Amino acid sequence: MREQVLPQGVKIVEVGPRDGLQNESSIVPSATKVELVRRLVAAGVRWIEAASFVSPKWVPQMADGAQVLRDIERKEGVVFSALVPNLKGLDAALAARCDEVAVFAAASETFSRKNINCSIAESIDRFAPVVEKALAAGVRVRGYVSCVLGCPFEGDVDPDHVAAVAARLYRMGCYEISLGDTIGTGTPVKTRRMIDACAKDVPVAALAGHFHDTWGMATANVYAALQTGISTFDSSVSGIGGCPYSPGATGNVATEDVVYLCHELGIATGIDLAALIDAGSFISNALSRTTSSSVARASRAREVRLASV
Amino acid sequence: MREQVLPQGVKIVEVGPRDGLQNESSIVPSATKVELVRRLVAAGVRWIEAASFVSPKWVPQMADGAQVLRDIERKEGVVFSALVPNLKGLDAALAARCDEVAVFAAASETFSRKNINCSIAESIDRFAPVVEKALAAGVRVRGYVSCVLGCPFEGDVDPDHVAAVAARLYRMGCYEISLGDTIGTGTPVKTRRMIDACAKDVPVAALAGHFHDTWGMATANVYAALQTGISTFDSSVSGIGGCPYSPGATGNVATEDVVYLCHELGIATGIDLAALIDAGSFISNALSRTTSSSVARASRAREVRLASV
Repeated sequence: MREQVLPQGVKIVEVGPRDGLQNESSIVPSATKVELVRRLVAAGVRWIEAASFVSPKWVPQMADGAQVLRDIERKEGVVFSALVPNLKGLDAALAARCDEVAVFAAASETFSRKNINCSIAESIDRFAPVVEKALAAGVRVRGYVSCVLGCPFEGDVDPDHVAAVAARLYRMGCYEISLGDTIGTGTPVKTRRMIDACAKDVPVAALAGHFHDTWGMATANVYAALQTGISTFDSSVSGIGGCPYSPGATGNVATEDVVYLCHELGIATGIDLAALIDAGSFISNALSRTTSSSVARASRAREVRLASV
Repeated sequence: MREQVLPQGVKIVEVGPRDGLQNESSIVPSATKVELVRRLVAAGVRWIEAASFVSPKWVPQMADGAQVLRDIERKEGVVFSALVPNLKGLDAALAARCDEVAVFAAASETFSRKNINCSIAESIDRFAPVVEKALAAGVRVRGYVSCVLGCPFEGDVDPDHVAAVAARLYRMGCYEISLGDTIGTGTPVKTRRMIDACAKDVPVAALAGHFHDTWGMATANVYAALQTGISTFDSSVSGIGGCPYSPGATGNVATEDVVYLCHELGIATGIDLAALIDAGSFISNALSRTTSSSVARASRAREVRLASV
């Protein structure tokens, strides 16, 4: 088989401090979040979603977003972002000096209605003024599309439907569209077809893969996405976050696993894997949970073995 | 990207009852092994490695191989095999009416010496009369090559070295060569290069992928192997077995995960996934361990969610 051209480097967007911690049952102190971010930055992570300005009534885990963003030590070249559901959230994010904000829509109508109580079209319309105001303030906007490879209510999702949502967010001004396999049922050929559909209207350089490892398919999907030319991936250190649609199951793919895969494929990430694993241990310990990263587990087990020789 | 041609169907070789149970610390009763095999067969599994005729001094978990093979209900079209280390083991396997036997060699000299106390060349020479006698008795022989993508002692392993060992076993009369990523550090591009090297001397239809999920890369490697045309995979139901070189870490990729991946890729396995998951629950319960199959976990979690709606 002919050698395939994979990207030379990838951008890793660390979503653990937001998407991850938001979906953990324990609430960690702001100081712990700040320390996690410090360790991630020290490991070489350059894109970190650090907060969510949604109502603390709905997401108490994220109530301290402003404080976290105030206490984080900023560093040249490191981008801190926050999820914003509306103009109020955007204002809070701007006040907290976010480098970037993120908006979101679903690729499944039922999911959209159950999750945010409106249709996909309505949700995108509501985000239009948010995107406009952010861009006017000189802040870039990222767009998330959820359920791109399956919906917990509808099952299969049409790739053309995903592409239409992605294109709308892109045309509205989002510089990057993150394609999320929210329930983790996706597999490589479906991943490729979905990305190919999206790439008709959005440059592949503006697409990101956001895979969940719930069904054990995340690294296969990352590899399939790399083969289509995708070079941006979202992941969560230590795999924190779980899957709200499969209680007890794994959610976000662990950053350690994506970084290991990329490095072994000869793809640069700019991240020090050992330091990243340490950051993962830190937050796993803080949450009193075991890591969901196979790489972190195997790496520790190898150290134990080598130490016992 | 152009659609890639994947195999239409794959052969799944279930190694849980041997490779899996051999590496579990608990010893399960023969009746439990027989019941596991019965459930696997009922789920549609047609190739099952059911025993190992090695010294019970070294592998007490496998001491009851003859009894297990006697008590298993045979079925037309289902192949039961056993690992044999020497002529004595072969004689026992023949007496137990094995349909197939398997021999093994390493692709790493250090691993070979530490594992079976002889060089790779010596180990293959010793197997020559075993293969000859098996074939004379009308019993097919499978060859295992271990450490094909890395060695716990030597690190990287040269694909040409793997290819040379695979070719020797094939020329000696093994009808199928199973390429084992013993420590699970392999990744897709290395997988493809290793298979491409082996396919120079052995028909790709006679090669099998045997991946461990220790570093979370197994499904990615299975996908990469499918892209090279490999259509036979070894796996262990529920991921039983662990990794002897990384205590506490995952070993064999779970059969449930490989079957899910294949089905979702449109590749037939002949296996009923739900029945397979039940077989995995049975053996996990018998071993008082949690499953290592992401698919089994996610599937159960989805059922719990649907039941609670």
